[in-house]
Amino acid sequence: MTSRRPVINLRDGTRRARPDTLVTEEPLEIRLGGRPLTITMRTPGDDFDLAAGFLVSEGAVRRTGDLLGIRYCAGATNDGANTYNVLDVALAPGTAPPENSLQRNFYTTSSCGVCGKASLDAVRTVATWPVRDEPAPLDPAVLIELPDRLRAAQRIFDRTGGLHAAGLFSLDGELLCLREDVGRHNAVDKVVGWALREDRLPLSATVLVVSGRASFELVQKAVMAGIPVLAAVSAPSSLAVDLAAESGLTLVGFLRGTSMNVYAGAHRLGLVQA
Amino acid sequence: MTSRRPVINLRDGTRRARPDTLVTEEPLEIRLGGRPLTITMRTPGDDFDLAAGFLVSEGAVRRTGDLLGIRYCAGATNDGANTYNVLDVALAPGTAPPENSLQRNFYTTSSCGVCGKASLDAVRTVATWPVRDEPAPLDPAVLIELPDRLRAAQRIFDRTGGLHAAGLFSLDGELLCLREDVGRHNAVDKVVGWALREDRLPLSATVLVVSGRASFELVQKAVMAGIPVLAAVSAPSSLAVDLAAESGLTLVGFLRGTSMNVYAGAHRLGLVQA
Repeated sequence: MTSRRPVINLRDGTRRARPDTLVTEEPLEIRLGGRPLTITMRTPGDDFDLAAGFLVSEGAVRRTGDLLGIRYCAGATNDGANTYNVLDVALAPGTAPPENSLQRNFYTTSSCGVCGKASLDAVRTVATWPVRDEPAPLDPAVLIELPDRLRAAQRIFDRTGGLHAAGLFSLDGELLCLREDVGRHNAVDKVVGWALREDRLPLSATVLVVSGRASFELVQKAVMAGIPVLAAVSAPSSLAVDLAAESGLTLVGFLRGTSMNVYAGAHRLGLVQA
Repeated sequence: MTSRRPVINLRDGTRRARPDTLVTEEPLEIRLGGRPLTITMRTPGDDFDLAAGFLVSEGAVRRTGDLLGIRYCAGATNDGANTYNVLDVALAPGTAPPENSLQRNFYTTSSCGVCGKASLDAVRTVATWPVRDEPAPLDPAVLIELPDRLRAAQRIFDRTGGLHAAGLFSLDGELLCLREDVGRHNAVDKVVGWALREDRLPLSATVLVVSGRASFELVQKAVMAGIPVLAAVSAPSSLAVDLAAESGLTLVGFLRGTSMNVYAGAHRLGLVQA
């Protein structure tokens, strides 16, 4: 997941040449039955999880049995090598491939008349499971510990400074799965894909902690996986808050030190939402 | 560019309800001649710059005259309102629309045989201008001041903690253009689109400073705009370094305090690359 490159460090006018450890970024092409579906820039590693989670986020796949298999598209490169940058996913018969969202958009917004609403609809996927009300509420004192646990479990972040982390925890704070990537949406897809392949969907009674900000897209991915609580170390966006409130997701931001901001779903933390 | 939402802050067990200022995130659909091209989640503001810069990054547009006009797709929503979330771009006759990169990928990787190389090619756009060797080198003492100048010019970051900034500077450190967005690629597209609409492309003799990390995609956008120096406050990825070295771009990372790491193109800083 890391690469080394030579670098010149300049500090207070002093020049020092040394090798530097960088996060690896490479393209991954995901194919469905041999047909290209998408390309994402990602950090190699857990690629099968990434592909599986991407398909859950897109609403195409719901359970382990929907996936017949995933394999690297190896073989006849010029030098016979496998680049490990192309995956082919076989879906079970009857499992529909995801609509291309741009194409979906083509149909839903062909008239200007509904454009704003339709644009927003085009970026929304339809939730597979409702976000469930958990019987046991989440203790804020547990939640506040999770960023430190996430960071302690990260093997790479401190070395490169370039990796986003997504960690899935139980409601009592046990780390279930950690994934890292140069793209924060990929880190979340990798966690969700892990859960799919472990037959754990929907992820009720879990908390997803992310190292960066909470965007609309991350809230959407949590909702698609049935995760009831998303907590981010940094800021959420306006649309992330709106989607969380609408979906019944608990959204926490600025989870740092002894403080957190609860933007939606405060009841799961034993609070009354403002 | 910001929105207010109610929030519950929990600090050291004390609960406090208050309004919070968040960065606004909304979808923007970019159309070409009425036909949907792409949707991006962005912070509203400077949308025309964003659309123009996106088309420069995609290699479709090179000069001001390539754009006949940009307008919000207003009109017949149900309530007659303009959502300001759909733009229509009119290209000059003879200006080809960008290829859809996924579609481009369809053609270039239809055989597995060249998949890795072709995947990478598919995410690369073809540089419009070579990155020029600047006659006047850039003084590292000027460069080291730029993150502070960028931050001082940011109107919003400190309030929401959720905005990425991209600032274009002259080689003597004068701020030429600042743009902010929830997405760092959008912030850069907004800067490049500003330059196109001001008829300043290619952006030789400039430095682009970004508040976050330097990915492959950001290096690509700098190259497409003819910017010779990209400096990031945080880490670059491996592929960002590789593309910079290959393109002749100067790439600086971890530009903080009195220190910087030079990953490529050190000659512009009066250094010999390691």
